[in-house]
Amino acid sequence: MKAVLVINAGSSSLKFALFPTEPELAGSPALSGQIEGIGATPQLSAKDAHGERYHEAVKASGSQNEQHRDALNHLFGWLSAHNPNLDIVAAGHRIVHGGELYSAPVQLNEFVLRDLDGFIPLAPLHQPHNLRAVRAVATLMPDVPQVGCFDTAFHRSQPALAQAYALPRAISAEGVKRYGFHGLSYDYVARKLPDVIGERSRGAVLIAHLGNGASMCALRDGKSVASTMGFTAVEGLMMGTRTGSLDPGVMLYLMEQKGMDVKALTNLLYKESGLLGVSGISQDMRTLLASNAREAREAVDLFCYRIAREIGSLAAAAGGLDALVFTGGIGEHAAPVREQVAKLSAWLGVTIDASANAAHATRIDAPDSRVAVAVIPTNEEGMIARYTVDLLAHAH
Amino acid sequence: MKAVLVINAGSSSLKFALFPTEPELAGSPALSGQIEGIGATPQLSAKDAHGERYHEAVKASGSQNEQHRDALNHLFGWLSAHNPNLDIVAAGHRIVHGGELYSAPVQLNEFVLRDLDGFIPLAPLHQPHNLRAVRAVATLMPDVPQVGCFDTAFHRSQPALAQAYALPRAISAEGVKRYGFHGLSYDYVARKLPDVIGERSRGAVLIAHLGNGASMCALRDGKSVASTMGFTAVEGLMMGTRTGSLDPGVMLYLMEQKGMDVKALTNLLYKESGLLGVSGISQDMRTLLASNAREAREAVDLFCYRIAREIGSLAAAAGGLDALVFTGGIGEHAAPVREQVAKLSAWLGVTIDASANAAHATRIDAPDSRVAVAVIPTNEEGMIARYTVDLLAHAH
Repeated sequence: MKAVLVINAGSSSLKFALFPTEPELAGSPALSGQIEGIGATPQLSAKDAHGERYHEAVKASGSQNEQHRDALNHLFGWLSAHNPNLDIVAAGHRIVHGGELYSAPVQLNEFVLRDLDGFIPLAPLHQPHNLRAVRAVATLMPDVPQVGCFDTAFHRSQPALAQAYALPRAISAEGVKRYGFHGLSYDYVARKLPDVIGERSRGAVLIAHLGNGASMCALRDGKSVASTMGFTAVEGLMMGTRTGSLDPGVMLYLMEQKGMDVKALTNLLYKESGLLGVSGISQDMRTLLASNAREAREAVDLFCYRIAREIGSLAAAAGGLDALVFTGGIGEHAAPVREQVAKLSAWLGVTIDASANAAHATRIDAPDSRVAVAVIPTNEEGMIARYTVDLLAHAH
Repeated sequence: MKAVLVINAGSSSLKFALFPTEPELAGSPALSGQIEGIGATPQLSAKDAHGERYHEAVKASGSQNEQHRDALNHLFGWLSAHNPNLDIVAAGHRIVHGGELYSAPVQLNEFVLRDLDGFIPLAPLHQPHNLRAVRAVATLMPDVPQVGCFDTAFHRSQPALAQAYALPRAISAEGVKRYGFHGLSYDYVARKLPDVIGERSRGAVLIAHLGNGASMCALRDGKSVASTMGFTAVEGLMMGTRTGSLDPGVMLYLMEQKGMDVKALTNLLYKESGLLGVSGISQDMRTLLASNAREAREAVDLFCYRIAREIGSLAAAAGGLDALVFTGGIGEHAAPVREQVAKLSAWLGVTIDASANAAHATRIDAPDSRVAVAVIPTNEEGMIARYTVDLLAHAH
């Protein structure tokens, strides 16, 4: 079986998915899973296309780099054992940051990797782990071509104004600008959209990727013109545990009046806020929607209110609103969130059909809605496999 | 002459304006000016209603508190010398922060002042100086009633969601919320608006107060429902030297990668950014509009783009857009800024008349504009005088 291996490597985990490429690239993986606990007691878990699940311990020791390499080596052995005649024709990596340079996927080599090392300060929590996995694969399977797919690349089509902060030129020039993220998801959904709403997909489209991380993107003619996440993935919408946008003066106050340092602030902004912080109950939208607590209600209301505010802001960037698309775990499954957002966006001509919404239908706009409203499940791993196959086809 | 004295006290300056109250409260002051350089070599400068200008040195020595009191004492003497039979019937103070408590002007006494002392951590650069002037007047003229008018009060009508950050409940509960500022200006303009646009003033109205500090307010039925400034006056629009909204992740980056501390960050966010930082040329819109430099153009474009984005966001808060009003130095005088903002807001039905705009007319919308567009000069000092007279009339 010829297949593309998709890899998303974190600090202590490694997610993978295997996409067969013959007779043509499959839309869903033959096998997917993750190795967690790298650096401690790593465990592999996976499921195949039939829903069968696998679990096993992974042997790894030595330095963190060695353990990541051992985990990948274990994975390759395990994949081959479960797929006789497996031929990994390429590896496609999710890489968080492509800086200002990379506006498309790129075949990875030592020259490109050195560029990407340069973006580590922009994404210190993710970029080093992404790149370590690339180098480990190069060592273990030197003949397999590797492709880097960036969360930021899709947004490089944005006008300069949408990417700018009002900071001194010297600071902006060294790369403090709005990069945007979730680009793999937006590109995937944007490619599906013409099948769902036809010509309107070329107009002013807003996609809401609502998961534990959440952001929105404004598109015009299928290209990103603005996004809510900016320099980092903490800006914009309220998220599971992240604040989203916050008056920078609040940061000064917390430093001055509370003596909070960068570590405490990072923890506050990324781990203790959002749905979890406002509800005091959970970061999980399902739990909050099922709760009768006032605090849960307040967290959900704020989540929806801030989406509605960003819809207005992004519509300004797109010059109107022809279509609104929900994706991501919450976007695909939380009908009450879609309903509340739609109500707050009625002023823009958004009206949804209650039963279509409850059924998570692909089209959920009411017949009289001026705006098309759709629910399109995202597939970031499938997008990486697609990029990888396409790039290598053109490279040959 | 009976008159209300309006006072706006800063760390080293004291602005004042004298509004006659008989036969009825005047809309513009008989005399206005400032004492600058308190703590160094204080100078009084003023002009009267005929345009005549005055300058003189002020004698002050001792502690900062004593110098402020001496400066006020000098002012009282000087006002009496220039206005025989002057009878100051009340003093109205601009006070930046009324916290969650004060949603209207209040007569000041030691009990209220102790409340207001409690808000010093929320506005450490302004609140202490505002309150020091109140106490100095109480010492010098113990029989003159004093009224506090808050920049935040007008926004206390906002729904809780518009005032919330997605922070942990404990932090929000201790007062880290969106207060909003420029409330004296918004209230003044909102009261003028029915004369300019009639019934539409009760609909969805956005007011853009564009000065060296800049913010916007969304109103519904004449009441604030959302504002761009939040916990501090640095959030929201790009300003003369302030960043406006900024990914909090940028703050973490500057702390971690650049070793910036709270003082350096405060300076960056408040003094080195905005129009000045982006242009590298000037914080003054007039200079930038007169410049041919690409950098000046970029700064103006970003200023307008961000206003247009906030117009979309605030329209979502107001549930639409019936009227857009410009005020403040830039809003009242910079026709090219209004023109650019209107073009970027064409998707909402905003169309302006080029010649009315060039003439800074009160109504600048084109006949076919779905949205009323107005230019209304603000008068924050006049608003303070009005509040003060009204409050004391009701108190007796």
